[in-house]
Amino acid sequence: MTAEIIYGKEIAGRIKKSVVEDVKIFSDTTGISPKICTIMVGDDKPSKMYMNLRKKACDLVGIDTEQINISSKITEKEFLDIIKEKNQKKTIQGILIQLPLPDNISKTKVFETLNPCKDVEGLTPYNMGKTLMGDEYLVPCTPLAVIKILEDIHYNVKGKHVVIINHSTIVGKPLTALFLQRNATVSICHVFTKDIVSFTKQADIIVTAAGIPGLITDQHVKKGAIVIDVSIVKTDTGITGDVDLEKVKEICSYITPVPGGVGPVTIACALENMVKTMNISSK
Amino acid sequence: MTAEIIYGKEIAGRIKKSVVEDVKIFSDTTGISPKICTIMVGDDKPSKMYMNLRKKACDLVGIDTEQINISSKITEKEFLDIIKEKNQKKTIQGILIQLPLPDNISKTKVFETLNPCKDVEGLTPYNMGKTLMGDEYLVPCTPLAVIKILEDIHYNVKGKHVVIINHSTIVGKPLTALFLQRNATVSICHVFTKDIVSFTKQADIIVTAAGIPGLITDQHVKKGAIVIDVSIVKTDTGITGDVDLEKVKEICSYITPVPGGVGPVTIACALENMVKTMNISSK
Repeated sequence: MTAEIIYGKEIAGRIKKSVVEDVKIFSDTTGISPKICTIMVGDDKPSKMYMNLRKKACDLVGIDTEQINISSKITEKEFLDIIKEKNQKKTIQGILIQLPLPDNISKTKVFETLNPCKDVEGLTPYNMGKTLMGDEYLVPCTPLAVIKILEDIHYNVKGKHVVIINHSTIVGKPLTALFLQRNATVSICHVFTKDIVSFTKQADIIVTAAGIPGLITDQHVKKGAIVIDVSIVKTDTGITGDVDLEKVKEICSYITPVPGGVGPVTIACALENMVKTMNISSK
Repeated sequence: MTAEIIYGKEIAGRIKKSVVEDVKIFSDTTGISPKICTIMVGDDKPSKMYMNLRKKACDLVGIDTEQINISSKITEKEFLDIIKEKNQKKTIQGILIQLPLPDNISKTKVFETLNPCKDVEGLTPYNMGKTLMGDEYLVPCTPLAVIKILEDIHYNVKGKHVVIINHSTIVGKPLTALFLQRNATVSICHVFTKDIVSFTKQADIIVTAAGIPGLITDQHVKKGAIVIDVSIVKTDTGITGDVDLEKVKEICSYITPVPGGVGPVTIACALENMVKTMNISSK
């Protein structure tokens, strides 16, 4: 058995095609040219790369972007004031705040301040709560991408055992809510889990986002499982994820590569969320 | 080995004692007599019983209650208007909406309408999001009670495997977030899980809220595990939970009885949340 490799680009392409149509409808009916504001503090290289990738994606689907790059010397108050200003600005429908933020700026305060209606990445308490409650609208992009990938291969997760290796607020926790909403049985593992293999070996679906290359080998995977690798790690030999793809693909049924798997779908999901913020703004 | 039985009344007593002090401080500093409004639609008997238990608890700690019992003929709009009125009312610090609601009233709309600052049970999207994000303030009372019980026996859940049998918005999902926040490994099972025993048998902590008497027997439990029974089921022979207590207590290390386990702590947690809404109102 050799797994089918899921190329995210194809899924992302389908999502983007429908985004292009939605953007056109929005522009035609409102007369407004949609615009997204991305805010980044400092000069973290992966963040910059991600911002540029997103800008390119926005350009291609007809969404304008205002990229704000702020010095890491900014105070919390000044930063929150910028968010408040963008919250008010009528020519901007969506706002993305690039993480990580410097230590002196409280992430909690930032996402308390951000207007939930402009919250492209679904990270405000209100939108997180809606996701947890199964009333999904602006859902965090990476968890959403994982669900889209499974939908794309027509895999019904109901009653399946999903093992997620990540318990962060951005990935593991909202992804757990999405899977529970779809009636999967979910186990969440992380750095404090004693015997990860005892979980992954039982999983119908493994979603890993640990940021540890080689974490998941053929010893971790049940025959026929689905393996989704969310991690993006830069090594001397290039970009890689958590999964030893060459070995694991001989055991599992479907697998996502890194790069080219979850990443492009995540960006497409951000575009889809941008359309949602546009539609909220026009109501 | 015979388990130690955890009587919720003792834990609840300690929580209530501190609530009495907090209520006095609130009254003394603001000159306001604190008041909570509970709203119930129809005449569901367990709901009525629970409302009365809560009223009694409020009386004992010095919190006034306004109990509103509405006919099930009410329209959704009329119901939402009542919530809006109570949201505005300055003499009321907290609001509890008794579930279940009739089918014609959208639970989503109800908790979208309820002011998060008065949300005693932590069920609005905003407060749910805060719970998911680990910024815990108004946390749903039943999940909170489970955590309080474990804290009371000084049990550190970090790295432990918790199996939760319930994936509802009120119990399983927020409880998962609370355990993940404390770095436990969490598995969530429910009616669609194929082999529940394969999960429970591996658990350091089992939290069950399935509402199925006899669901958890000695065959389900690892030696020395902690078993917390959230269910309250009325049977011909009286109130019971999910766990066969007589058999299971011979295997596990700690166990909560039903009645007299989680229930009283849940009510005490509601009182504690009421104090939090008072403190928000006085800011």
